[in-house]
Amino acid sequence: MVRTFDEYKKIVEDNLLGYMPHIDPLAKTLYDSMAYSLTAGGKRLRPVLLLASCELAGGDAESVLPYACAMEYIHTYSLIHDDLPAMDDDELRRGKPTNHMVYGAGIATLAGDGLLSSAFEIMYRDMYLFFDKKNELKNRVKAAYAISKGAGVRGMVAGQTADLEGETKEPNPEFLDFIHMNKTCAMIVGAVTAGQYLGNADDEMLKSMTSYAECLGLSFQIADDILDIVGTKEELGKNPGVDEEAGKMTYPALYGLDESRKRLHDLTEKAVSHLSEIKEDTAFFEKLVRKMETRTK
Amino acid sequence: MVRTFDEYKKIVEDNLLGYMPHIDPLAKTLYDSMAYSLTAGGKRLRPVLLLASCELAGGDAESVLPYACAMEYIHTYSLIHDDLPAMDDDELRRGKPTNHMVYGAGIATLAGDGLLSSAFEIMYRDMYLFFDKKNELKNRVKAAYAISKGAGVRGMVAGQTADLEGETKEPNPEFLDFIHMNKTCAMIVGAVTAGQYLGNADDEMLKSMTSYAECLGLSFQIADDILDIVGTKEELGKNPGVDEEAGKMTYPALYGLDESRKRLHDLTEKAVSHLSEIKEDTAFFEKLVRKMETRTK
Repeated sequence: MVRTFDEYKKIVEDNLLGYMPHIDPLAKTLYDSMAYSLTAGGKRLRPVLLLASCELAGGDAESVLPYACAMEYIHTYSLIHDDLPAMDDDELRRGKPTNHMVYGAGIATLAGDGLLSSAFEIMYRDMYLFFDKKNELKNRVKAAYAISKGAGVRGMVAGQTADLEGETKEPNPEFLDFIHMNKTCAMIVGAVTAGQYLGNADDEMLKSMTSYAECLGLSFQIADDILDIVGTKEELGKNPGVDEEAGKMTYPALYGLDESRKRLHDLTEKAVSHLSEIKEDTAFFEKLVRKMETRTK
Repeated sequence: MVRTFDEYKKIVEDNLLGYMPHIDPLAKTLYDSMAYSLTAGGKRLRPVLLLASCELAGGDAESVLPYACAMEYIHTYSLIHDDLPAMDDDELRRGKPTNHMVYGAGIATLAGDGLLSSAFEIMYRDMYLFFDKKNELKNRVKAAYAISKGAGVRGMVAGQTADLEGETKEPNPEFLDFIHMNKTCAMIVGAVTAGQYLGNADDEMLKSMTSYAECLGLSFQIADDILDIVGTKEELGKNPGVDEEAGKMTYPALYGLDESRKRLHDLTEKAVSHLSEIKEDTAFFEKLVRKMETRTK
């Protein structure tokens, strides 16, 4: 079944809050702050990628929703913590005040912790349903492991650390690549590989899709860096120019805008070439990476 | 095999750093800050409880070390975030400067995020080894779920939120109970139930040990509240009196010191009575809860 990005996105958004573990009314602020950021919009790129990658392998999107939603919980936690005064100190995200501007930095820290913990709870709860289905359980553990790797100290958290430390370092290509590979790319690779495991993909498809995801993830971050320079506040839903102000080590800062656009284009073509290795219909993924190249928000 | 608390503690401390996922040298600060707090000492109560609960059920402590260490990673993350300026703003922990005093609040936030993510990575990595052992895999998923529940928004994170919000609320018994049940108790229950699952305990033992853990967890937190009043900086490794200063809702604040001591004693006896329901040798657990009652640090 081939669906559009917006169709996948709608399934995710319709189910996102429903997966939250029950929170006692005495911790209502925790629920409110988590729900505030979960429902603040966003592309839902990671969960959509997981669902589409699962279906590409022959799986069923509806049955792996817990993993897609867990991905968005993790992504949302990372944005809340990233926006904190102790980190990037951003006041605006997706056109709305950031979590800590509404709930204070203490609750925002806990909302992030709560979202990250909940992501794992959601996945474990699902695994209980597959105790008697060996292959399904195995694929679920593999998917959850891929997600945790993408999110953790061999992925996003390492990238966030390097991003923060990059502000006080002389720009250098090796360090910039490390930031890009980990800050954004690792979670995108995690989403695609998790979806592939959940759909029981064969090794060949998994390999091509992993390479595709690496190109997509890098191109996504370069586009993000470019938009911070050429984007408008209205389109971005946040203030542009903050990377430069903070002295962030970005692609344009190191190579200039033209070279960054060229690299973005090359990565897009490389991503598409990996799709051509796959015999199933990959039009969804080609459209996605091409749209990424020209996005304005 | 019956071991002492210190014997279990040594196994945990000997293995704690070894379970950390490989961190790239470019994110060395992340590794350093995580390792700093992991090796800063502490009782290691949660991992020891997990190991001992597993062995009580007939399991083998050495084979469930990933879960014990994961518990300590989660506990350590919670302390780092709890100490942050945006939370309790503590400068001293276990006689040493808190993580953010050494690495700054940004890196400390990420070190906490990294420890929490790593805990789950460590457990998933272990599950890979049991793909062909249905019962062992099932018990491992159950244990990881119990740990995630204790750590998350139905446990510790909810308790931390209530603890923070309690500072600006009029003291009331229902809210205080909620703080105690979640802030500390939930993770202690998580440790014991996880250990029981890993040791393949029968339902009867699991029920008694869960009740024991609830009493132990509550008594631990009441003792903590009392020590904040009567303890010394040397013994505690942190400044006493900080709860009162912050206007924390604690047991002594609501009921006074005498009543708190009485409650602590009653809980100890109740914990021991639950142990008497178990036919195996529970001397370790009785000694532990009795020691908790009279601890000075």
